[in-house]
Amino acid sequence: MISRMSQLFVRTLRDDPADAEVPSHRLLIRAGYVRRAAPGIYTWLPLGLRVLRKVEGIVREEMDAIGAQEVSFPALLPREPYEATNRWTEYGDGIFRLKDRKGADYLLGPTHEEMFTLLVKDLYSSYKDLPLSLYQVQTKYRDEARPRAGLLRGREFTMKDSYSFDVDDAGLEASYQRHREAYVRIFDRLGFEYVVVRAEAGAMGGSKSEEFLAKADVGEDTYVRCDRCDYAANVEAVTTPPAAPRAYDDVPAAHAEQTPGTPTIDTLVAHLDEAFPRADRPWHAADTLKNVLFALRHPDGTREALAVGLPGDREVDLKRLESKLGEGVVFEPFGDEDFAARPTLAKGYIGPGALGEERPAGVRYLLDPRVGEGTVWVTGADEPGSHVLDLVAGRDFTADGTIDVAEVRDGDPCPACGAEDGGVLESARGIEMGHIFQLGRKYAEALGLQVLDEHGKLVTVTMGSYGIGPSRAVAAIAEGTHDELGLCWPRDVAPADVHLVATGKDEAVHAAAERIAHELSSHGLDLLYDDRVKVSPGVKFKDAELIGVPTIVVVGKGLADGTVEVKDRRTGERTEVPADRVVDHVVALVRS
Amino acid sequence: MISRMSQLFVRTLRDDPADAEVPSHRLLIRAGYVRRAAPGIYTWLPLGLRVLRKVEGIVREEMDAIGAQEVSFPALLPREPYEATNRWTEYGDGIFRLKDRKGADYLLGPTHEEMFTLLVKDLYSSYKDLPLSLYQVQTKYRDEARPRAGLLRGREFTMKDSYSFDVDDAGLEASYQRHREAYVRIFDRLGFEYVVVRAEAGAMGGSKSEEFLAKADVGEDTYVRCDRCDYAANVEAVTTPPAAPRAYDDVPAAHAEQTPGTPTIDTLVAHLDEAFPRADRPWHAADTLKNVLFALRHPDGTREALAVGLPGDREVDLKRLESKLGEGVVFEPFGDEDFAARPTLAKGYIGPGALGEERPAGVRYLLDPRVGEGTVWVTGADEPGSHVLDLVAGRDFTADGTIDVAEVRDGDPCPACGAEDGGVLESARGIEMGHIFQLGRKYAEALGLQVLDEHGKLVTVTMGSYGIGPSRAVAAIAEGTHDELGLCWPRDVAPADVHLVATGKDEAVHAAAERIAHELSSHGLDLLYDDRVKVSPGVKFKDAELIGVPTIVVVGKGLADGTVEVKDRRTGERTEVPADRVVDHVVALVRS
Repeated sequence: MISRMSQLFVRTLRDDPADAEVPSHRLLIRAGYVRRAAPGIYTWLPLGLRVLRKVEGIVREEMDAIGAQEVSFPALLPREPYEATNRWTEYGDGIFRLKDRKGADYLLGPTHEEMFTLLVKDLYSSYKDLPLSLYQVQTKYRDEARPRAGLLRGREFTMKDSYSFDVDDAGLEASYQRHREAYVRIFDRLGFEYVVVRAEAGAMGGSKSEEFLAKADVGEDTYVRCDRCDYAANVEAVTTPPAAPRAYDDVPAAHAEQTPGTPTIDTLVAHLDEAFPRADRPWHAADTLKNVLFALRHPDGTREALAVGLPGDREVDLKRLESKLGEGVVFEPFGDEDFAARPTLAKGYIGPGALGEERPAGVRYLLDPRVGEGTVWVTGADEPGSHVLDLVAGRDFTADGTIDVAEVRDGDPCPACGAEDGGVLESARGIEMGHIFQLGRKYAEALGLQVLDEHGKLVTVTMGSYGIGPSRAVAAIAEGTHDELGLCWPRDVAPADVHLVATGKDEAVHAAAERIAHELSSHGLDLLYDDRVKVSPGVKFKDAELIGVPTIVVVGKGLADGTVEVKDRRTGERTEVPADRVVDHVVALVRS
Repeated sequence: MISRMSQLFVRTLRDDPADAEVPSHRLLIRAGYVRRAAPGIYTWLPLGLRVLRKVEGIVREEMDAIGAQEVSFPALLPREPYEATNRWTEYGDGIFRLKDRKGADYLLGPTHEEMFTLLVKDLYSSYKDLPLSLYQVQTKYRDEARPRAGLLRGREFTMKDSYSFDVDDAGLEASYQRHREAYVRIFDRLGFEYVVVRAEAGAMGGSKSEEFLAKADVGEDTYVRCDRCDYAANVEAVTTPPAAPRAYDDVPAAHAEQTPGTPTIDTLVAHLDEAFPRADRPWHAADTLKNVLFALRHPDGTREALAVGLPGDREVDLKRLESKLGEGVVFEPFGDEDFAARPTLAKGYIGPGALGEERPAGVRYLLDPRVGEGTVWVTGADEPGSHVLDLVAGRDFTADGTIDVAEVRDGDPCPACGAEDGGVLESARGIEMGHIFQLGRKYAEALGLQVLDEHGKLVTVTMGSYGIGPSRAVAAIAEGTHDELGLCWPRDVAPADVHLVATGKDEAVHAAAERIAHELSSHGLDLLYDDRVKVSPGVKFKDAELIGVPTIVVVGKGLADGTVEVKDRRTGERTEVPADRVVDHVVALVRS
């Protein structure tokens, strides 16, 4: 196919659009791939649509290859199924809701777990029908609070979502692994660097979950990876290994000391250095045990007090905390009224002595895994201006359990290999490109999806859910492959195989270019052909670099000497090729 | 590709679904092509999606062939452009409206004239950029008052909408004709009987317009066609030729007569036969002039009285009336208060004497084209119980103009060929499958789409709009091609090329079928392969007939004698083919 630049619906822009925050967004707008229609809502122009369709094509091929079957659900969905799973409420402002002319409630689907569950329930009834994997490539809607970065976080976007249905956990694990392998193949083919990280299933419910992240500095997701092994996880999913018990035979008995005016860790550490200097090393925030209070609000409306005890040099990571709370549980600040209602809590000087469900304040007390048996701490003595020193975990205090919500820091030991001489974690940023979940039975239970097992007994089906965003992938590929001149597409997703440029007004040049265009096209190649006569060579070259087709062929002055230039967009490498051999040369390049 | 019935996500149903009104709907549900998700909203199962994709593919090919370029707009659209063209209001309850989390107004696009206009305005500025045709295949939304007949009138559906942009009327006409020819090719390829009818542009504004209707008894659209020439039009668009002037020299002077108790045409005709019998023939309703009153409501809120004068044997066709009113003008009943406000109108006995904008009642008076100069009428004398006889149009009364809104009847002369010895009209029903419009400058004017012409002067662009509904086409094809056994797809849109059935439990049979399946697939054919072992031959045959793939190959008992049965789904014709030649035989059939 030949697309002539003289007719193609595209206008390249020299200037960056004012609202574009990241390179992929700037370049996709400037090169005429997409246009903004409303905040977070984009129109695909011909070049952009070709890339999107190629990405969707790769996704479909790999889904079909694992036996997943394509269906297509509506985007406009009735409220009832989402009410049954409570997501109508849980999504809050995050979904678009509307009413039809009769006043019935609808939503624009953010994901389709409910609809797939009901469809399978509608058609299937026996274990013999399973395993089953269904998918769709479809338009999704989320009313993002802050749509940003062009296609990276839009409000209307395309998504491939698939769902697996199995009769037991082993089946789910197998379906999950098949999808995982398909995702690896998809991301390998899409041609950008990515990493698979362990993830918390979060609001989706369920157990095992991994994310596929495109490595990108502009990414919204922070993940950590080991500098030695292949461990990678998003921050919510990092597990801190519990500290091994330590001997504490030579630790003196705990003793309370006056520490006036030390309600913060910094003031406490300064006071310790002054009043209780240590011979071997100064005091450090990590020597103190900080107890941070939260009020939890449960779905039934009840409020609960929670204290997290962790080393004083770490903060509670609120996203990690959120991911550890039960479904529908939210945290709120622990306010003055909460303190007033619990007079045994001395604000700024709270210690384990006042915490725990059995104590008068009734505060559930959970410890960071680093506060292991035998560790020694300075902590509040539950009286204003007073701290306890040499307080030993396990000897002098216990708690109601552990909770792993402290911030993850570069240099933390790797949970996979880092115990002794192992790797340490480092953080990086990425763009969430795919997410695979073992949902388990949550949706099947809520919507009554059961099948008869081989003994004729009704069993609840177990499900997986798997998503990839092709529209976001287009932006992520652009983000991961562009250079300072423009876009730079991997061959498999480029909007054309070849960008052919005819320069000048010489009729012989244009006739030769025309002939080359037709010959390349007859070999099945897709061409962008810059046949514009009144446009300068400089503008044409700039356009070709901006648009980013992998191979650029220039027919120009060299033709007088019988040569045509073939340029590699990525490396910039130029090759002079005899004009009568350029078609074979380029076909071989594209097919290589 | 081989799709095994043992694994395909499909369940055929023996019974008709309760809510299915038309054969296409019943069969598409029963054969497992679609499932209802909500009223007028459907989910496409694997078989249905394949047919839909083939229809969309044909549409894309023919659009590409006329140089139209594919883009893709969002479905979720901001209010403002639709406000600028007044369609936000005009659509009334017919569109889905919603608000985002910030309270901004959005709609789900019913068609995209506004968005395309703005996009072209955004990118193009010169006559050199035109002509331009853009299209998309995309999901559309309309909040139908009565969604019905499955996919035939849905609330979420796919549509190919394209738009042409030209600098002048001649360009628009050329773009329109190119689209028209592409549509003819598309409908020829889709394989059902259709007719192209003249249409009123109606609420879309603009001038020339034609509809492509699938001929179908279950269709919602009535159209008329000539029994002799190729004239066809939807009822709104039928034009009645004005009556030629007749001589009225021998008509006596008009004379008012007492006609007590004759407020209706029937009572009047009966009275005339009794009191004023005619020698040559009895009185007929067509001899009377009926004046029907309406109250028109204009967009600015003003109310206007309108009288339509037409032969007493015809009713005003309200859809035809609606299509003749100006944009945004609606009609309301002419009620008792309206009569009370105009005492010169004698209800049931209104004649031309009281009508006309200049008369005291101030009623605009428009005549049916049949009420031509010299025609003779009996009509109301504007006094209760009194009519005028021998009233001659042009001699005794005139009106403010003509209006062509009388019902169209079978047997009416054809406007194209029917003047003398010509054809007559007959009505038929169809399903609207495509609609092409010359929009003109309405949208370009409202949204400011102008380009510089060759003299450097700004001119407003003229547009065309062209729509086809692929999802509706799937149902229309099913409607037009099914038989009493099930669906019966034309080859180009069938969900597979061949439905291969292996019967019985004989391993040799299944091994042979397996081998045939792989050989056919290696020739590039798509197969449904009924490999189910525990299902009876009868059920398999019924399923194959219901699903409607054009060629059914049965490997069964005949294999012992070295033969396989090849059956034509449409004709029912069966051919015994030697097993070792069946692959070549079937490949030739499919390729023929």
